Amino acid sequence: MTGSSFGKAFQITTFGESHGKALGVVIQGCPPGIALDQGMIQQALDKRKPGKGPASTKRKEPDKPLILSGTFEGLTTGTPIMILIENKDAKSRSYADITQLFRPGHGDYTYQKKYGIRDYRGGGRASARETAARVAAGAVAQQVLGPFDITIASHTLALGGVTASTHVPTEVENNPFKTADPEAAQAMADRVAQVKAEGDSLGGVVEIRASGVPAGLGDPVFDKLDGEIAKAMMSIGAVKAVEIGAGIRAAGAKGSENNDAMSHKGFLSNHAGGILGGISNGEDILVRVHVKPIPSISRQQQTLTVAGDPGMISTTGRHDICAIPRINKVCEAMLALVLTDHVLRQKSILPGTDLDPKAFIS
Amino acid sequence: MTGSSFGKAFQITTFGESHGKALGVVIQGCPPGIALDQGMIQQALDKRKPGKGPASTKRKEPDKPLILSGTFEGLTTGTPIMILIENKDAKSRSYADITQLFRPGHGDYTYQKKYGIRDYRGGGRASARETAARVAAGAVAQQVLGPFDITIASHTLALGGVTASTHVPTEVENNPFKTADPEAAQAMADRVAQVKAEGDSLGGVVEIRASGVPAGLGDPVFDKLDGEIAKAMMSIGAVKAVEIGAGIRAAGAKGSENNDAMSHKGFLSNHAGGILGGISNGEDILVRVHVKPIPSISRQQQTLTVAGDPGMISTTGRHDICAIPRINKVCEAMLALVLTDHVLRQKSILPGTDLDPKAFIS
Amino acid sequence: MTGSSFGKAFQITTFGESHGKALGVVIQGCPPGIALDQGMIQQALDKRKPGKGPASTKRKEPDKPLILSGTFEGLTTGTPIMILIENKDAKSRSYADITQLFRPGHGDYTYQKKYGIRDYRGGGRASARETAARVAAGAVAQQVLGPFDITIASHTLALGGVTASTHVPTEVENNPFKTADPEAAQAMADRVAQVKAEGDSLGGVVEIRASGVPAGLGDPVFDKLDGEIAKAMMSIGAVKAVEIGAGIRAAGAKGSENNDAMSHKGFLSNHAGGILGGISNGEDILVRVHVKPIPSISRQQQTLTVAGDPGMISTTGRHDICAIPRINKVCEAMLALVLTDHVLRQKSILPGTDLDPKAFIS
Amino acid sequence: MTGSSFGKAFQITTFGESHGKALGVVIQGCPPGIALDQGMIQQALDKRKPGKGPASTKRKEPDKPLILSGTFEGLTTGTPIMILIENKDAKSRSYADITQLFRPGHGDYTYQKKYGIRDYRGGGRASARETAARVAAGAVAQQVLGPFDITIASHTLALGGVTASTHVPTEVENNPFKTADPEAAQAMADRVAQVKAEGDSLGGVVEIRASGVPAGLGDPVFDKLDGEIAKAMMSIGAVKAVEIGAGIRAAGAKGSENNDAMSHKGFLSNHAGGILGGISNGEDILVRVHVKPIPSISRQQQTLTVAGDPGMISTTGRHDICAIPRINKVCEAMLALVLTDHVLRQKSILPGTDLDPKAFIS
Repeated sequence: MTGSSFGKAFQITTFGESHGKALGVVIQGCPPGIALDQGMIQQALDKRKPGKGPASTKRKEPDKPLILSGTFEGLTTGTPIMILIENKDAKSRSYADITQLFRPGHGDYTYQKKYGIRDYRGGGRASARETAARVAAGAVAQQVLGPFDITIASHTLALGGVTASTHVPTEVENNPFKTADPEAAQAMADRVAQVKAEGDSLGGVVEIRASGVPAGLGDPVFDKLDGEIAKAMMSIGAVKAVEIGAGIRAAGAKGSENNDAMSHKGFLSNHAGGILGGISNGEDILVRVHVKPIPSISRQQQTLTVAGDPGMISTTGRHDICAIPRINKVCEAMLALVLTDHVLRQKSILPGTDLDPKAFIS
Repeated sequence: MTGSSFGKAFQITTFGESHGKALGVVIQGCPPGIALDQGMIQQALDKRKPGKGPASTKRKEPDKPLILSGTFEGLTTGTPIMILIENKDAKSRSYADITQLFRPGHGDYTYQKKYGIRDYRGGGRASARETAARVAAGAVAQQVLGPFDITIASHTLALGGVTASTHVPTEVENNPFKTADPEAAQAMADRVAQVKAEGDSLGGVVEIRASGVPAGLGDPVFDKLDGEIAKAMMSIGAVKAVEIGAGIRAAGAKGSENNDAMSHKGFLSNHAGGILGGISNGEDILVRVHVKPIPSISRQQQTLTVAGDPGMISTTGRHDICAIPRINKVCEAMLALVLTDHVLRQKSILPGTDLDPKAFIS
Repeated sequence: MTGSSFGKAFQITTFGESHGKALGVVIQGCPPGIALDQGMIQQALDKRKPGKGPASTKRKEPDKPLILSGTFEGLTTGTPIMILIENKDAKSRSYADITQLFRPGHGDYTYQKKYGIRDYRGGGRASARETAARVAAGAVAQQVLGPFDITIASHTLALGGVTASTHVPTEVENNPFKTADPEAAQAMADRVAQVKAEGDSLGGVVEIRASGVPAGLGDPVFDKLDGEIAKAMMSIGAVKAVEIGAGIRAAGAKGSENNDAMSHKGFLSNHAGGILGGISNGEDILVRVHVKPIPSISRQQQTLTVAGDPGMISTTGRHDICAIPRINKVCEAMLALVLTDHVLRQKSILPGTDLDPKAFIS
Repeated sequence: MTGSSFGKAFQITTFGESHGKALGVVIQGCPPGIALDQGMIQQALDKRKPGKGPASTKRKEPDKPLILSGTFEGLTTGTPIMILIENKDAKSRSYADITQLFRPGHGDYTYQKKYGIRDYRGGGRASARETAARVAAGAVAQQVLGPFDITIASHTLALGGVTASTHVPTEVENNPFKTADPEAAQAMADRVAQVKAEGDSLGGVVEIRASGVPAGLGDPVFDKLDGEIAKAMMSIGAVKAVEIGAGIRAAGAKGSENNDAMSHKGFLSNHAGGILGGISNGEDILVRVHVKPIPSISRQQQTLTVAGDPGMISTTGRHDICAIPRINKVCEAMLALVLTDHVLRQKSILPGTDLDPKAFIS
């Protein structure tokens, strides 16, 4: 089955394992005539890369995206775009112990049960490294969205129990945790240092926002825009909960509080998170994802061997303490992919009988 | 595009509007030779039906499922199963005022923006009535799951801010709110009465659990079991957040707390909610959905006319105060659909070269 | 799996058995705001219906299409259109003998082998009656194609070995065999009478032509327009060969003969049948399908019983002598479905950032 | 849209242009635990490669398949298999003249009209070189089919008007045209030499046969096995007609002649080509494809410039005289892909509740 494909009109298909030779993505449905900026793809990948921050692994991957098809003289041609990212820094030795042990919180056990075989090196296909392909594709999607003036941004709402209480957008890029609250950033740093010393790990909350989204995107009833976003986010390995707009707070509110009244200036609030009846309403799309702590920790954990015997495991390889902020870029990419797909889907039902693409080439 | 289809190996396609002539579902991929119990489908629909409870609308729909294809002498034949449900009690008159006003919290405005036209009668395709088709299909799915000993149940965790604090499974069917906490049930009744008197509405939280799910279901990386469940749930109109296992609590925990250690007796906890790496691990699948308050309220709300002028609206038609507990059965149905799809998907990659279906016919 | 669905942007899903309660189709992706003419659907179904001609069965089905969803006040709304056709004249008794015998040339044996069960009444899902749903959907497709000035027509090239040698388009509707050669029509009538007296049946060749198709339709490399058409046609029960343009004659020609040279007036010939590299080139799309003789004949045939014993069968029920000309309308419908799907697919990659559907509503 | 994907349970997605950096394929749905023989893939590619024969181009491509994902220690893991083939011998200079001229019989004009842009180098995505990815995937499919004892073979029935009149299977590999008639092989050689001297090209007919196919494959009604095969074959660039079993001869036969009677030994003939009602019946699957002459010829042809002015073109690059016999391997690959997909689809509806894959790993 086609579990590694996502989207219908704008569809990506990813492949690759953490310690295989390469990973990558094939993008179908990209409109022709777009001047694809490889630098933007590289930039997106760089932001997802293991960083210098206190919560990050030391694994160093250049993650250089090679566009092997679908462009000609710098323009997309309408044919499948294949982007390859080679694995350069895969040290299989550091994972030698996990050949015989199932790591708690990882997919080791379930891959073994599903397939009867698993590529244990670095988690194989279940590794977060898989998300590099998503980010590369998301960077292409964002270039398709460009002319629509749709922009996507994210920031860290909470990390390790430290919650941002102010929102200063310009601060997001000024701290290693990508939070909009500079004071929280400091507290997060302390929290990370403490937990790192304990050999433990942390989770957190990320908010993603798409602005400039026109009303009308989303296909009822199963491909509702929020349904698609929920899948897009929950399909990221570490995500355990997804909220749209008011999210969990909506469950405790009354209708008169939660409904967004309308005036001639537009909606007077945005509890809906920009989506009504599964279709965008022109307000910002607001998504929050709850990220579990990295399961790889150096503290000893009780587990089983592949043979079913009791065992203990302590992960000493190169790992992040927290998936945030690297996961933030993955969330942005997934939102860009959903929106691009639905922009193209919406175009398919628009009026007009002119099928000539020439105007696209300026 | 195919937004009204869900699933790949076991796929449903639904159709129909709230006040159209009928709604229904076509089910593809159902294995042959299953003695389809029409009574089970009727029973599931009855539980979703507007009830006598204090939170329910008075609309009376018989919701009789007509199986018009795909069975022969009571057995499924492997061909598409079509189930039709006629709309009998659609009083279009009671919605006359909404022809010119967009109801806050509903899809009126977004359908108009997406399609340039909308069937305003009862919300058209955006009506919760659409979920009757899901429930009918879910009842078929549950019959496919039967031989696998997979069972699905739900209960109300919170309603209108009243939270269940005990969990007595046998109590769920003993109160109109389908909560496992009898004391909370009483408080919920009080809360509903109070809010109803105010002309307002309520939301809540539902937990859905699948037991007996074998390890190995779920297709990485986008069709992860949790990704599919998230979409399945978020595609239900009123749902604004979805959690798997520890969900939002995972974001605040440390890795050593959130990881589920393993012993030879199995997992020692279930923070993962039965899913690791997007694949079921043999533990119970645990899902929580957060449901917004019903947007239709009799209190006056500020809105716009179709022409863009200011207006006020008060909904006096027949409406529930809360989507719970009717939505609970919809959530169960969606989980059954996801699991059935992935059971059949898993079968497609199993070893063995015997392709003869005869053993299915006992 | 989804074998009863066809198309991606404009997708139909059909259901129903020959002698079940009803058959029908769900259409997804139909643009909103189209004034759906139910009379056109009825007209198309009438042309597919068992006729009064010498080659036709006497089964009488009113085949009245009931549009149960997806329209509002006569306009399509963008939501799934469900068209139901009830089975009124199913005399199960006349098929009683085939419960124990596999009919040669039919799907009885293969359905039994695939599913371990079959609805033997009238061939169940394998009956040509299934094509009524295609024709109904095709009539909707043709209304979507209307504003694009794409028209589709067909005529009978050969029947029972009698080949049309002249092509007078105005003659097609003047004879029961829908051939453009009036002299051939007479010879066909003689041939049918003779073979009917023998208790035997006939096949033939149908040519389908789409005019006004803009260049640019068809998605390389697997969804080439000719690939899609080939599947569309071959999926009609009786079709055993499909040609595009010069077809089988191309195999014997030289490149200099088969290539279509271009001048500023366009292509100087149309051996390509309007498709180059899988994409329409602006010339007429030309398709020929070769139809096998109806397998149900009153002559005795050697076969097997369900238990595997030798048996003889003679079909005395109501059957056509030849699938032509009823199949002609099915071929037209399938071509309309392919073209509509690809028109909408092409729209999804067109330039322009205006996503507002309002212009569609005139 | 997803035009470069084929199959549902076993799905391939191809990418790449003739003179881009690489082409390749991502395979989804391959069962785990299969010892993938890279040599078999290389062997298949070698047979598709430009050869030394008189009808072949001199372009020399090593076509070495690089398996970059989806296997571990030589076994498939159930995750996407990516096979990359680098383009080594792309001489863009020899195509310099076609930047301004549309080549008759090629997709140059239609790609330009569809996308407003085209990669003219070697035909870009429309090049037959694209089929290398199909052949690589087909070789994987054949390894999945191996345990089912399904084998696929092809031979040339006609080339340049020379028709094989005997069928000696052992002769197929003994002549450069892969025909089973040694005398015809000689006549084909003469014909090729003559036409080559004229600066012209030839077409022909290929028959493909799958043996050992169990009854029960094929999903009614649109994904009939013959419908899928028709699309698979017609999606190969040069194919203009597809026949199943008796094919075009069926159209001229009577029912009593065309029906395949059954005895306890099985079917007494195979006019159906192994498919009844769209489902395999256990007999050999028989397919014939009609291949047009290579459109690139050195004779002068009338055409248009990109600007719409009259022009003349003569193709002097490296080209085959005839797509046969290289296309034969592509046809085999496509048939293998269809059968593998339907084997896995059939497995999904089989009885039994054991979902454990372990037995697959011997």
